[in-house]
Amino acid sequence: MDQEPKLHFNLFLFTAGHHSAAWRHPDSALERLGDISYYQELAKISERGLLDAVFFADGHSVPPVAQGARWFLEPLTTLSAIAAVTENIGLISTVSSTFYTPFHAARFAASLDHISGGRVGINVVTSMWDAEARNHNREAMPAAAERYARAEEFIQVMTGLWDSWADDAIVADRQGLWADPDKVRPINHQGEHFLVDGPLTVPRSPQGKPVLIQAGASEDGRNLAAQWAEAIYAVAFDLKAGQDYYRDVKSRIAKAGRNPDATAILPGLVTYIGSTEAEARAKKAELDALLPVQHSLRELGLFIGQDCSDWDVDAPIPDLPSLEEVTVPKGRYGTILRMIEVDTVDGKRPLVRQVLGRLAAGGGHCTMIGTPEQVADEIETWFRNEGADGFNLMPPMLPNSLEDFIDHVIPILQKRGLFRTEYEGKTLRSHFGLEQPVMV
Amino acid sequence: MDQEPKLHFNLFLFTAGHHSAAWRHPDSALERLGDISYYQELAKISERGLLDAVFFADGHSVPPVAQGARWFLEPLTTLSAIAAVTENIGLISTVSSTFYTPFHAARFAASLDHISGGRVGINVVTSMWDAEARNHNREAMPAAAERYARAEEFIQVMTGLWDSWADDAIVADRQGLWADPDKVRPINHQGEHFLVDGPLTVPRSPQGKPVLIQAGASEDGRNLAAQWAEAIYAVAFDLKAGQDYYRDVKSRIAKAGRNPDATAILPGLVTYIGSTEAEARAKKAELDALLPVQHSLRELGLFIGQDCSDWDVDAPIPDLPSLEEVTVPKGRYGTILRMIEVDTVDGKRPLVRQVLGRLAAGGGHCTMIGTPEQVADEIETWFRNEGADGFNLMPPMLPNSLEDFIDHVIPILQKRGLFRTEYEGKTLRSHFGLEQPVMV
Repeated sequence: MDQEPKLHFNLFLFTAGHHSAAWRHPDSALERLGDISYYQELAKISERGLLDAVFFADGHSVPPVAQGARWFLEPLTTLSAIAAVTENIGLISTVSSTFYTPFHAARFAASLDHISGGRVGINVVTSMWDAEARNHNREAMPAAAERYARAEEFIQVMTGLWDSWADDAIVADRQGLWADPDKVRPINHQGEHFLVDGPLTVPRSPQGKPVLIQAGASEDGRNLAAQWAEAIYAVAFDLKAGQDYYRDVKSRIAKAGRNPDATAILPGLVTYIGSTEAEARAKKAELDALLPVQHSLRELGLFIGQDCSDWDVDAPIPDLPSLEEVTVPKGRYGTILRMIEVDTVDGKRPLVRQVLGRLAAGGGHCTMIGTPEQVADEIETWFRNEGADGFNLMPPMLPNSLEDFIDHVIPILQKRGLFRTEYEGKTLRSHFGLEQPVMV
Repeated sequence: MDQEPKLHFNLFLFTAGHHSAAWRHPDSALERLGDISYYQELAKISERGLLDAVFFADGHSVPPVAQGARWFLEPLTTLSAIAAVTENIGLISTVSSTFYTPFHAARFAASLDHISGGRVGINVVTSMWDAEARNHNREAMPAAAERYARAEEFIQVMTGLWDSWADDAIVADRQGLWADPDKVRPINHQGEHFLVDGPLTVPRSPQGKPVLIQAGASEDGRNLAAQWAEAIYAVAFDLKAGQDYYRDVKSRIAKAGRNPDATAILPGLVTYIGSTEAEARAKKAELDALLPVQHSLRELGLFIGQDCSDWDVDAPIPDLPSLEEVTVPKGRYGTILRMIEVDTVDGKRPLVRQVLGRLAAGGGHCTMIGTPEQVADEIETWFRNEGADGFNLMPPMLPNSLEDFIDHVIPILQKRGLFRTEYEGKTLRSHFGLEQPVMV
């Protein structure tokens, strides 16, 4: 193993790309959003670039469909079909602890870990919308505190089930035992939210336990991540915000008694790359021009928890309530407040249109625009200054923004010794430099 | 479309094969039970034989592990990885209506239907063991009547969700709508067991609705199958039992106002095939000799609901309670009673060992032993005499018992005009001769 830390990159796979108008572009893969070969191709491009993993977010309700697809294929089935045509790249699925039982989640993840030869990560989320709850037998979403309490117990049970088969439980002795009954153990969990006897129906998987990823921005989310996460997705629109989050969460990890260096923090990253800075900016402008203003205002309204559909996009953005006053998810809301703060020059608040532009691709995640060298420089700055251990790539348009990154930025980072030049192992744990758990 | 009815064949994929001692055989795939390439190869063999589908049963608890694996990989993830390396063969997963929410089930199935280009079937089961309930937040399994009431509502909601996107909901107009909001509709279901607003997150899939399969043997199961099933798995150890079931269920389908010819009834079928009858019998004896008697007695005990671990295997089997007196699942129990009845000669009850032998492979399903011609003859007899519309193949050992069938029996049935000589379509609906649902 190389001792010098290296960058980690995930591809966040999302419809036609992370720019909300990407699907309107003439070159978009609009007609292929339900076609598995599209996602398989994107995973192969990512594997060609030696990325750590591809990753799917997930949701359990349908947002308004006029302005583009948010969801299409289900992540676990999609990743399994990707596993079948790739060799090395990690496969990360989002799983809702509010809507799955931990037995289902543990079983899907362990099965996919076998199918992929040890490449699975699970991004546990608590979900947030009432519309999602109302597809799974609940009138409304439980409050955040209850969701996080359930998530904590969910992870305990899920990892307990992964540990229910010892590494050497399967004996496979044709004249004797198939498996040693003493090494396949119930967990007999009876908690606040779950009753689960175990053991899991799926024997110990190649990674021992699939990798646990978390994306918490709230207080509860950060604490859950500090305690459990082996990699963390973050939202940080500039280096300062990235550093604040990075230092805060790394110190929480240390306080939880874990090694902060072992858990990679990966902010989302939107990149527009051109052979000149002007070409890169033109790529962004081309997508921004496709943006339907009314829809963008509605989306902003969702994030800030108020109707702003009649706002004048060419006027300064009105005052917004403080973080403490709102009931919407605080991670994204806080980012919007900081965007306004940073774009406020000499007391002049930014125009509504400027905020919409920032939100259109990645919704407030870091955006880098420039030549491959410029983007590599920025990445190196974040990496060397406690801003990030790597990034969760959110290409504004797929596949071309991804290919720009893979073909032009990755080679520079490799030359600088900041990124792997070959896969050193076959598992996601190995890509992330994580230890293989042992269960005897 | 060919008007003359043809046979339908599913491969029931199960560990090293359906004979419970198959894994002990020197040629078994024992080391590959967690290896997706094993299942992919079996699916490709089945596709070479033009079978309608491969099928996975499912369970949510671990039976004693000493005497062999029952479960390993999870079916939906497995079928998705199989979809990625096959072109035509149908992919049928069991889904428990007791442990899944209908939204999860509808979503997985629709996603897999997209991934496979329209090859998915869902075998809805109600599950039966308390040990399974205790992995999903229940102290014990609900009573059969409650399970079936839930199953009925489950299927209503699942099919409703599949119908929540019209066939032409996606407009994909780069200058206008991605999808027409009037054609993506909530279902607003509020029933006894489920609250589900919908619509589904997955747009209308290639088959419109994945194919619904049922395997009910009980009164409740038969009625559910009559009302919903587009194909039915049956248990029938001889032609008489097959005919009884076939005629009963076909008449129930007619009474439910559906076309009985459109729903294929597929009894399980265990085959031992040799170039002579003696060679076929030798193949069976070779597996039977590997059978651990104590374990087989324990399994029998589960099926009949009493401890028989100290029974003398060389003594006649004791009297058993009538079907009405027992609380175990009645389908399999009734078959065991009929096995004993049929094997009772001149008032002499069969030996316990004879019953164990019948149960060892397929647990009381029809067993055919002989040359390819003999097996083809028996199949034709069932097919022409209201015993079966085809069979759910349960090869005692995989892959060799399957290859015997594919390479030697299928060609005979093709020559007789009883089985397809090429796939006539790409979807499971097309293989089963089912209509494509329309939703405007």
